[in-house]
Amino acid sequence: MSISDAPQFTIVGSGLAGALLACYLGKAGKRVDLYEKRSDPRRHGAESGRSINLALSVRGIKALEEVGLADRVLQNAIPMRGRIIHSPTGQQTFQRYGKDESQAINSVSRAGLNLILIEAAARYPNVRMYFESRCTGVDLKDMAVEVVEEVGVCNQEADTPRSPRHIQFETLVGADGAYSAVRAALEKQERFNFQQDYLSHGYKELTILPGQGGTFCMEKNALHIWPRHSFMMIALPNIDGSFTCTLFWACEGPNSFAAIQSEADLLRFFKEQFADAMPLLPNLAEEYFHNPVGPLVTMRCSPWHFEDRIVLLGDAAHAVVPFLGQGMNAAFEDCTVLARCLEKQQTEAAFQDYERLRKEHADALADMAIDNFLEMRDRVASRWFLIRKKASLLLYKLFPVWYVPLYNLIQFTTTPYADARGRARKQDRMVWRVGIGVLLVLTGLFVWLSAFR
Amino acid sequence: MSISDAPQFTIVGSGLAGALLACYLGKAGKRVDLYEKRSDPRRHGAESGRSINLALSVRGIKALEEVGLADRVLQNAIPMRGRIIHSPTGQQTFQRYGKDESQAINSVSRAGLNLILIEAAARYPNVRMYFESRCTGVDLKDMAVEVVEEVGVCNQEADTPRSPRHIQFETLVGADGAYSAVRAALEKQERFNFQQDYLSHGYKELTILPGQGGTFCMEKNALHIWPRHSFMMIALPNIDGSFTCTLFWACEGPNSFAAIQSEADLLRFFKEQFADAMPLLPNLAEEYFHNPVGPLVTMRCSPWHFEDRIVLLGDAAHAVVPFLGQGMNAAFEDCTVLARCLEKQQTEAAFQDYERLRKEHADALADMAIDNFLEMRDRVASRWFLIRKKASLLLYKLFPVWYVPLYNLIQFTTTPYADARGRARKQDRMVWRVGIGVLLVLTGLFVWLSAFR
Repeated sequence: MSISDAPQFTIVGSGLAGALLACYLGKAGKRVDLYEKRSDPRRHGAESGRSINLALSVRGIKALEEVGLADRVLQNAIPMRGRIIHSPTGQQTFQRYGKDESQAINSVSRAGLNLILIEAAARYPNVRMYFESRCTGVDLKDMAVEVVEEVGVCNQEADTPRSPRHIQFETLVGADGAYSAVRAALEKQERFNFQQDYLSHGYKELTILPGQGGTFCMEKNALHIWPRHSFMMIALPNIDGSFTCTLFWACEGPNSFAAIQSEADLLRFFKEQFADAMPLLPNLAEEYFHNPVGPLVTMRCSPWHFEDRIVLLGDAAHAVVPFLGQGMNAAFEDCTVLARCLEKQQTEAAFQDYERLRKEHADALADMAIDNFLEMRDRVASRWFLIRKKASLLLYKLFPVWYVPLYNLIQFTTTPYADARGRARKQDRMVWRVGIGVLLVLTGLFVWLSAFR
Repeated sequence: MSISDAPQFTIVGSGLAGALLACYLGKAGKRVDLYEKRSDPRRHGAESGRSINLALSVRGIKALEEVGLADRVLQNAIPMRGRIIHSPTGQQTFQRYGKDESQAINSVSRAGLNLILIEAAARYPNVRMYFESRCTGVDLKDMAVEVVEEVGVCNQEADTPRSPRHIQFETLVGADGAYSAVRAALEKQERFNFQQDYLSHGYKELTILPGQGGTFCMEKNALHIWPRHSFMMIALPNIDGSFTCTLFWACEGPNSFAAIQSEADLLRFFKEQFADAMPLLPNLAEEYFHNPVGPLVTMRCSPWHFEDRIVLLGDAAHAVVPFLGQGMNAAFEDCTVLARCLEKQQTEAAFQDYERLRKEHADALADMAIDNFLEMRDRVASRWFLIRKKASLLLYKLFPVWYVPLYNLIQFTTTPYADARGRARKQDRMVWRVGIGVLLVLTGLFVWLSAFR
């Protein structure tokens, strides 16, 4: 490898964040090497990964626009204009997200989107990608990343243990997800703050198959929710007419994944709780007992960088629970901000600036995502919640400049997360004050009128 | 190893927590194997470790009493009856801790105390100890602990890399400190919550030598503090007439350890800030540039156990910053509670009970220790703090049953930490209410009297 050939940036992980950053850096003319543990999806077809579809909203779209990929991605997306709440008796209630039809979040396939990003990155001659290359650690002394060649899907060789290669890097980007090996190396550094918090709930994916001729068996342009207080199921549409359902439930205890021991238990549970969905899940038992229970984890750390040598991106820096559908959108925003910071200044200053601009908002998102879990699971089905939601959307329609609900600030604006939360709190206080004021005036008026009679 | 010989408990770490637990389990007739990375202090003399002396208070003393070691330890301890505050001009102010002379915390040597505990544990024929045996990991599948033989202090062999031995365990106790290898194995388990938080401050130890003939150059029966707002130094007495000083200071920045580049910088800084201590620190520069800056870390995790197989103890479960001098005392309380739980029930239930009884209080201690850092560094020198402290001790003297200051609840009672904090908050609210009541009555009285005139 000649000097001019050496990469300026070494990215670990070609998931959504890593592949998009490769596009940004590729466009900026940087020499980038990318290492990915999975096999090349362009050759082997996409892996059926953890969560199969995702909600892309304006933050993510903006980030894709900057590398000219937004239109391409949106062509394969299904807009979801609101929630449909499924009651235990099968009644459906539609709750619109926005003030009109134009506001929607977009259901996209994770694998499809990842493929688009990898293809786009590969088009830059200055970006090189190495698949089936798992990062197992980082040597901070020698500034080298340890990479082990994976035995790929199509590789039938004997699984002899392979010793890791040490690959020198100039600047390393850890985009290797919530269980980041790059971050693990930083965790052992003094004064590296780190926190991993699991919900007691986990998730399992199930599939609603398309109807005859690829038709949708439920409303296509909505996110479906079966809220059941201590647990819930959701479903997002896929372009082939199917829906990917995700069941969120406690991992342990009498009312939990662990309590389902047999097919009979499972069918009884679904019949009781998700009667309207059951006929749409023909492979329920097979999928249920085959698919793993995924964890729901929040990861926080600081600093996000090590000198001018290593920086963390997306889930590696700030994994959040999926209940606002913002994990990917936030990771895409990271790419935009990091790339912009790198344009303007020296690497270490850029990393500091990137963290200063993003950390506070990533923390706010983590908190709000947990809050929204409680809202979706529990409050979404209550009458009082519905009244407040309607009142809030009415206020939004009447005073669209002055009042925007928190959910809409998150999904339909690029207001940074912490600012959105601050604004929503202010709005709520104001509404209460105005409400109390109106009540006082009305009471006064009533007393005054009564006295006149 | 015959079956009857196999240990029931394998403890990793013969520090203060591990060695005391070995005494408890030894006394209860359990077969215990203990692995320790350092060499045997009975043969080689104690290692000059991180923090050289510690404050032993009633919680720790109670725990030592149960294995008959309290008297032995207190013989070599120096009671500290209050704080002596050193102003920048060298003025000294005494703040008594308790309501009288009898309430004191005890300065003990870490190494000396550890030696007593190891000797005591070794006296049980059912306790075996293996030194120079570092735990490098735990194999959760095979329930084995990986132990590497260390090249000991006196061992002059070439440092050929040694491969770890896998030692099966029935029940494993992780008493291997804040950077526990046992906990690291649990961190990789799903749904293990973990948090490490560093203060931006670190610490460095310095020594005030004894005067001629082993006399003390400052008041012996006190904890000395030089509070300087953004940093501070403290000193605890040792039985040989010396004091161990600890300088707590920011690690980075213009006013920090990092800012001291030369001996001239150092002497200027000490002359300005610690003028009265400087003549007592003859080896200042040598010690300063030789001794490392230690980190100040808070570790939290949950659960503290894995099935009925692994349990964490002391710093491994809940490292706290040292500003209440309670890390060791809390670890000793852990030993008492864990041993008691194991007496009464099956192992897994005992572990659950132990965590239920201790976790909340360990968390409260962690928070309060950080609060006390701010108090010692900053508020301890303010006039308003002194007035409140005096008022609080006066209330304590007048109503010793009804009002006990938080500091005294922590140092001189065994009230669990969270309960102590709750009680202190209640007391404070009550004092404010009574204060406001008295003020109102006095104002009323004044108005009434004025009207009469």
